[in-house]
Amino acid sequence: MSKQKIGVIGMAVMGRNLAWNIESRGHAVSIFNRSRERTDEVMAQSQGKKLVPSYTLEDFVDSLEKPRRILLMVQAGRGTDAVIEQLRPLLDKGDILIDGGNTYYKDTVRRGEELARDGLHFIGTGVSGGEEGALKGPSIMPGGPRDAYDLVAPILIEIAAKAPDGEPCVVYIGPGGAGHYVKMVHNGIEYGDMQLIAESYAVLKHVVGLSNEELADVYREWNEGELDSFLIEITSKIFRKKDDKSGKMLVDVILDRAAQKGTGKWTSQSALDLGVPLTLITESVFARVLSSMKEERVEASKHLAGPKAAAFSGDRKAFVESVRRALYMSKIISYAQGFAQLRAASDENQWNLDYGAIAKIFRAGCIIRARFLQKITDAYRTDGALKNLLLDPYFRDIAQQYQAALREVVGEAVRLGVPVPGFSAAIAYYDSYRAETLPANLIQAQRDYFGAHTFERLDEKGSFHAEWVE
Amino acid sequence: MSKQKIGVIGMAVMGRNLAWNIESRGHAVSIFNRSRERTDEVMAQSQGKKLVPSYTLEDFVDSLEKPRRILLMVQAGRGTDAVIEQLRPLLDKGDILIDGGNTYYKDTVRRGEELARDGLHFIGTGVSGGEEGALKGPSIMPGGPRDAYDLVAPILIEIAAKAPDGEPCVVYIGPGGAGHYVKMVHNGIEYGDMQLIAESYAVLKHVVGLSNEELADVYREWNEGELDSFLIEITSKIFRKKDDKSGKMLVDVILDRAAQKGTGKWTSQSALDLGVPLTLITESVFARVLSSMKEERVEASKHLAGPKAAAFSGDRKAFVESVRRALYMSKIISYAQGFAQLRAASDENQWNLDYGAIAKIFRAGCIIRARFLQKITDAYRTDGALKNLLLDPYFRDIAQQYQAALREVVGEAVRLGVPVPGFSAAIAYYDSYRAETLPANLIQAQRDYFGAHTFERLDEKGSFHAEWVE
Repeated sequence: MSKQKIGVIGMAVMGRNLAWNIESRGHAVSIFNRSRERTDEVMAQSQGKKLVPSYTLEDFVDSLEKPRRILLMVQAGRGTDAVIEQLRPLLDKGDILIDGGNTYYKDTVRRGEELARDGLHFIGTGVSGGEEGALKGPSIMPGGPRDAYDLVAPILIEIAAKAPDGEPCVVYIGPGGAGHYVKMVHNGIEYGDMQLIAESYAVLKHVVGLSNEELADVYREWNEGELDSFLIEITSKIFRKKDDKSGKMLVDVILDRAAQKGTGKWTSQSALDLGVPLTLITESVFARVLSSMKEERVEASKHLAGPKAAAFSGDRKAFVESVRRALYMSKIISYAQGFAQLRAASDENQWNLDYGAIAKIFRAGCIIRARFLQKITDAYRTDGALKNLLLDPYFRDIAQQYQAALREVVGEAVRLGVPVPGFSAAIAYYDSYRAETLPANLIQAQRDYFGAHTFERLDEKGSFHAEWVE
Repeated sequence: MSKQKIGVIGMAVMGRNLAWNIESRGHAVSIFNRSRERTDEVMAQSQGKKLVPSYTLEDFVDSLEKPRRILLMVQAGRGTDAVIEQLRPLLDKGDILIDGGNTYYKDTVRRGEELARDGLHFIGTGVSGGEEGALKGPSIMPGGPRDAYDLVAPILIEIAAKAPDGEPCVVYIGPGGAGHYVKMVHNGIEYGDMQLIAESYAVLKHVVGLSNEELADVYREWNEGELDSFLIEITSKIFRKKDDKSGKMLVDVILDRAAQKGTGKWTSQSALDLGVPLTLITESVFARVLSSMKEERVEASKHLAGPKAAAFSGDRKAFVESVRRALYMSKIISYAQGFAQLRAASDENQWNLDYGAIAKIFRAGCIIRARFLQKITDAYRTDGALKNLLLDPYFRDIAQQYQAALREVVGEAVRLGVPVPGFSAAIAYYDSYRAETLPANLIQAQRDYFGAHTFERLDEKGSFHAEWVE
């Protein structure tokens, strides 16, 4: 019996779709699922496809060519540990496990080290693009031992999304947990993108008074310019979707409680550990939390005063353009923060990340795919040591042109009581980052006053303490 | 030889001052320090004081009455573990260790459980007030087994600060890590307070153009009203402090790089874990990080455009009052967030925290001591189940009166390029919390579109998925 080059464990939608994706490139694929029923269900859905089912892990392992390539698409966390535990005694030196789940990167480091003791290779890879991406071509962010990556690279390259210029959206990210770390920050960036679009929607709706139809038109138009991206595209489509049940537009009957699965939170917590000011993504995580406090908000809305609503009296078209500029500038700031975090993490973990290559593989397949990612790649190709994206000439020029619009939009929203935590964090970061002096001299004076924590001076090196009380 | 009721290990300034504080209440105190030299130094500084030095831990332990009461004032982290390791074999069942360091609360939980196996009691206590507080009376936040607390309470009550009404600033916080958790959030709140004052300073200086002398006057005046607090008081004094070296005012020669020791970061990370929107303190932590990036900021300031500075043309006195109101309202929002975090942590850990009692012990001794803390105590005394401080009538009324000023100050600062991350986070939180609807319906639509994550509806219970692509 001929053996398969690769097998997939975990036949939930993502695992099944990745198996189908691999199969569609001409490879027979071994599959396994914890419950036999799901395996049979997938086989029934896979008529005419070269999927080879196994009902025990022993048979599954036996069905693979050596070195074995096994893609794990199981519940991140204990699910991953459990299946590794069961597989371990069945494998041989040189076999390769690939974890494609949304795994916490420190777990990936731990598992990689444990498996290496048995001579097994472990690759932790980010896979972005949702169900459709998994099926047709996701963005893939693999991390782990380089030589093991090389043994799976041909298949990963085949199944990855292709950017507009034909390049596959997969690249070796780095050793250890680098792949899952980059996926985590990718997800954090996704939180930021979605929050910023939501704020632009709130401002256009509540300040300018646009209808769903007008909103659909605005986002469609925006999608033709600098903001061209998957999320703007689907936003436009969302505003055109009717609800069959109520006859209303669907967006208007959806409850305003945003859920989350933890990767945004991890991104913020890591930024705090690294000492990277990741303000916008963090506000986006907190904004989801606030949205989930629906009952409390409804109650508070009865008691807490706000400004009186006023009909918009300015130039609607000009203000819509200001919102577009505010959105693009805030998005740039969010990516500047996220890529600064990648740099800090790379330095801390000696991952030697290639930021330009990372931006490149985000160009297709994944949720944050967008035309402007090419600009990020270009920026790092021009200057690999770039400290902050805002300092790249392209982004610097956008900032120069658009900062006034961002100020205008934040000012209007704050005046009228429309919450814009993301936009506000963007301009506060911009003004802080470009501030030669910040009022932290006062904070240091206070700390020295009450705790003798000492301060530095502008005119002399060293630590100083003053006798504040005379 | 008579034995002492209590001993202190760790003779750095905080430990020495606490020993002196205890001694000043009429108790002889055993002391120990890892290095003999420091013990001798402290003894030389302690002429006429009943301090009893030991040079081995065995002698130190022998010098104490049973059950022994030992206050650890050593480097938090490995320092604490090391000294506990050495002490453990020397102690008897029922002895009490009190950790007064800035310890991570999960370490306190772990140590408490380990020591309980030997029948030893472990109390993790927050001690706030800096060197002067330690000497004259700190605010004390003890957590751990209640019966062990009762055995040390008489001494803690004696050495604690006394509030204006004479009440000692110490109360049993709760079991396990509750004391250190409350101290951690106290420190986070301190970060927020300091950041907000720094932003008010930046606005008054850069928007209104106040001189140091005028700033000193403004903060002195503010300290006579609602903002009456230790930090406002010392801020006023800081602006009057001359630098002997340069002849300038000292605040103007202090480098604007704020340092931090980690408790603010822990507070934010815990809020992210608990799902509590702690936006203001988190922005304050990130603001310190941004301030520390001095060289990068100086470089960026040469390349990134901002608005042209303009001389202030409004009513100076009226705007200064707006800044005062913005500061007070933002401070209230920061405490509302911090106390919401305490409630979430209390629920999660079954600590049964008494929020009114906690606000009460912050009224004196500690860095955030302020007149308005009485209002927090009153709010929780009126309604122990209060979900958010903003819903209490006093704070709600302040919000109603002052929200316009906060909007004005954020608007002006954003327009003129003065970074106000804390003020901005305050108004964004206020407007989000009082929003009956947020644009998170769009986020849920997007998540369902690209990931089939489902959404809830406003008009029907359940989870729904739409076929977005037709």
